[in-house]
Amino acid sequence: MTLPRIARGLAALAALALAATAQAKIVTKTIEYPYQGMTMKGFLAYDDARKGPVPGVLVVHEWWGLNGYIRQRTEQVAKLGYVAFAPDMYGEGKTTSDAKEAEAWSGEVYKNHELAPRAQAALDVLLKQPHVDKHRIGAMGYCFGGSTVLALAYSGADLRGVVTFHGGLFPPDEKERTQIKPSIVILQGDKDPFVKPETIQQVKDALDAGKVDWYMVSYANTVHSYTNPEADSYHIEGVAYNEKAARRSWDEMTHFFRVRLGR
Amino acid sequence: MTLPRIARGLAALAALALAATAQAKIVTKTIEYPYQGMTMKGFLAYDDARKGPVPGVLVVHEWWGLNGYIRQRTEQVAKLGYVAFAPDMYGEGKTTSDAKEAEAWSGEVYKNHELAPRAQAALDVLLKQPHVDKHRIGAMGYCFGGSTVLALAYSGADLRGVVTFHGGLFPPDEKERTQIKPSIVILQGDKDPFVKPETIQQVKDALDAGKVDWYMVSYANTVHSYTNPEADSYHIEGVAYNEKAARRSWDEMTHFFRVRLGR
Repeated sequence: MTLPRIARGLAALAALALAATAQAKIVTKTIEYPYQGMTMKGFLAYDDARKGPVPGVLVVHEWWGLNGYIRQRTEQVAKLGYVAFAPDMYGEGKTTSDAKEAEAWSGEVYKNHELAPRAQAALDVLLKQPHVDKHRIGAMGYCFGGSTVLALAYSGADLRGVVTFHGGLFPPDEKERTQIKPSIVILQGDKDPFVKPETIQQVKDALDAGKVDWYMVSYANTVHSYTNPEADSYHIEGVAYNEKAARRSWDEMTHFFRVRLGR
Repeated sequence: MTLPRIARGLAALAALALAATAQAKIVTKTIEYPYQGMTMKGFLAYDDARKGPVPGVLVVHEWWGLNGYIRQRTEQVAKLGYVAFAPDMYGEGKTTSDAKEAEAWSGEVYKNHELAPRAQAALDVLLKQPHVDKHRIGAMGYCFGGSTVLALAYSGADLRGVVTFHGGLFPPDEKERTQIKPSIVILQGDKDPFVKPETIQQVKDALDAGKVDWYMVSYANTVHSYTNPEADSYHIEGVAYNEKAARRSWDEMTHFFRVRLGR
């Protein structure tokens, strides 16, 4: 047997042994935490076999609330090796599949400048989890959750990396842009009708003015909510799942967090 | 010893064994091939230990010609597991570090619509190499080489994936856009002064009209030639190396080709 063949054999054995132990290690639980008189019901997922310090990642929901889709994404992030925590941005873990309701709920949070404070409350919960490495924290979010993780970064939170998937983009103001710590990755459908090219330009300009490290990926023929396999079921113009963009954006986030946070 | 520990032990052994054999396997050679009365001197690099069928990748030079930088990139591509071939787009392997000369040479090729034919001649050489899998071919190019690989794709060449790094972008015409086979990845400095936003929009629109699969990455605070560590030595306004964008774009290409070509 040659050395490369031995190496391949060992690698195959290692993969088999890992596969045998990769099952059923992800623990999930709902964590209740108070926020201004409300009870928020966040969702935690982690690999029980990993011993700390382990990087942590916030996974922030779409305007529908912390639903099954986001729980699934949170578990997937845990499988990458992180302590993953999905904040409850609405309280009582409430969710909806009614666009008008979702718009009202998320609109209220936007209007009251509650994105960053509510995300911060969840970040505090994540930081308290055993084994979480406080200095290696990332945040990712979808749609409304994309706005949320940007707001958290703009507030000066101690994050290493932020990823928005079809995020509701908006620029940091003059004060905010000076206090942004993480690198920011913007993963956007090229045909997303909910974010105007002018807004994207404003975001880029403001991040540049703050000397923020960022990059942006535009996916062809891709609209809003492209990561969500249930997107089409909402029957909203400009909202659709795109399998290719979903896979590519997931891989992009995975690689980015591996570089920024380790694993 | 637990199973995960055994797995990690085996993985470490495998990595060691692979590292021991990873040295000195890359073979390089100059291949001369005729093109319209000229002798082109391309540069081939491959891993001698790999047995076919192996995917192939064209690596097309900047307007400086097939210089040391591109040879190095070609060897790096070979290390990823591909048969890598750098075309000689000027003939006789000529290179320059004089911008006026580079502009004249590349301008001549652009003007005479010689991008695709010359790239095709090199592609034919790559396809003739033993062990190359003719159905898993990619093409990547830098600056002028980015234009070249786009032109090759627009000509209908049988490619699976194309990657441009700070490429001279231009849209396919109405006929060309119907015959594009590969997925296209555009890796661009957000501050690249040599490619106007209008041009980028024209490229996107034309690719969309042809139902081409593409995506584009924009790197913050990044100008032209950002992958080339020697870029600053040319003292050209809007041309500079950017280590972060160089690494990210390399990783982007690596992942894209792994998915599209295998390895």
